[in-house]
Amino acid sequence: MSNFWIYESHTPGYEVRWRITNILHQETTPYQKLAVVETTEWGKALILDGALQISERDEFIYHEMIAHVPMLSHPQPNRVLIIGGGDGGTLREVARHPELQSVDMVEIDERVIEASKRFFPQVASSFTDKRLNLYIADGIEFARGNHGPYDVIIVDSSDPVGPAEPLFTVDFYRDLYNLMDEDGMVVVQSESPLFFADYFKNVYSNLKSVFQLVQVYTATIPTYVSGPWSFTVGSKKHRADGIAEGRSIPGPMKYYNSSIHKAAFALPEYIRQMLE
Amino acid sequence: MSNFWIYESHTPGYEVRWRITNILHQETTPYQKLAVVETTEWGKALILDGALQISERDEFIYHEMIAHVPMLSHPQPNRVLIIGGGDGGTLREVARHPELQSVDMVEIDERVIEASKRFFPQVASSFTDKRLNLYIADGIEFARGNHGPYDVIIVDSSDPVGPAEPLFTVDFYRDLYNLMDEDGMVVVQSESPLFFADYFKNVYSNLKSVFQLVQVYTATIPTYVSGPWSFTVGSKKHRADGIAEGRSIPGPMKYYNSSIHKAAFALPEYIRQMLE
Repeated sequence: MSNFWIYESHTPGYEVRWRITNILHQETTPYQKLAVVETTEWGKALILDGALQISERDEFIYHEMIAHVPMLSHPQPNRVLIIGGGDGGTLREVARHPELQSVDMVEIDERVIEASKRFFPQVASSFTDKRLNLYIADGIEFARGNHGPYDVIIVDSSDPVGPAEPLFTVDFYRDLYNLMDEDGMVVVQSESPLFFADYFKNVYSNLKSVFQLVQVYTATIPTYVSGPWSFTVGSKKHRADGIAEGRSIPGPMKYYNSSIHKAAFALPEYIRQMLE
Repeated sequence: MSNFWIYESHTPGYEVRWRITNILHQETTPYQKLAVVETTEWGKALILDGALQISERDEFIYHEMIAHVPMLSHPQPNRVLIIGGGDGGTLREVARHPELQSVDMVEIDERVIEASKRFFPQVASSFTDKRLNLYIADGIEFARGNHGPYDVIIVDSSDPVGPAEPLFTVDFYRDLYNLMDEDGMVVVQSESPLFFADYFKNVYSNLKSVFQLVQVYTATIPTYVSGPWSFTVGSKKHRADGIAEGRSIPGPMKYYNSSIHKAAFALPEYIRQMLE
């Protein structure tokens, strides 16, 4: 057994380490340090600035939950915007919906896309989709431009340090609001309520100051260490906590089902109280 | 900041480490190695054979969920049996129910109780409850004896290695079945479906071979690393996935609420498929 490890530091008092058998790729992009490693536990994993982004074995959880909850609670998600999500996993799940007519995706770091295409072809499987318009650009600036309107927007960012930091602000959410139709819905990956408590609460209150309806749901993603992982929805009209009438699940899933969709919105008391 | 750490090895490729500021207590009991440490992340923690059992900061999740789900889905949980649970946290939650008339608790290792009383008084707070009969004994042998009948049995064991191993067998579940009334219900902590996949599946099929109705629920417990943590219910008559008519939640909770009770039974596809 190899004695190489990747350490991931979560708080000053909490680290995990995963055994790796190989470092397949390393580079410094204009935005961050990027690495691809082979782990014994989770298969291949993409690492940005020292933090595991996706692993082959459990990426389905995050991607199914960030994509299908908004895509299935909106009655007609024809036009979609993905901000971030360079690995392509969210795009892959969005593209499964036959209702999708066009999807704009805005990723700031082209190297993430290239690395994913090369090392995670089963994640980056939809970059050839004809409905896709791919922009290599800053999501913040894109959101200020004249785009859309969109039915669903997905903010699939990395942690709120480095390039992703402005993606958690009220100005940005207001710009997204203006890019959407009168029944639009945005979902934001909003971090661990335990390890990023302030961000989690800020995303909620920032979205509340812009959107008519704000709802939080969680999923348990093994490689996103801490316990629960949160997603926060800002919606102009539609509730997000169930499948919209007339919509149906586009094929077999590995995490998502209709019961999980509803159940994900039930928050433990200690998380619910963080939002009061 | 101290540079002392406790390492917890979960699989050959996955370890966590938590920073500790002090080792408060260490002993070798007749059954296991016991330690109490002060962590920077989770407060004081009880460690048995190298595995974190409870931390001050998140013990409420496990204890509320193992206790209140069966206690509130049973219409009249008057007589309760707890097997294991030496720290007293499950007892503390069970004792909150005014319907409780008597609770037998069977812990094999008296030293765990003593350590909990000394270092975790807010967890071990119900050992003076007048409804309690405490047995320092082997749960397996106790279950073969002439006890009960019970309405609810809670198997609050440590991991299925060492002293807890026989607590996951069909013979043991059959003995528990015979200790219960015709509407009895048992809940078993059934480990991480990811890290203890075989045990998780065995508990389910073993309970299925004995009980009329078997249901699985999960909770996300930060210090029980891996993602979801599972509990499996074997029931003679009552469903476990909701609060029984006429019952009400005995006071403020930190994790449990009626929505979480129901939602905990919604299983992700990959877990549901493990049980087919």
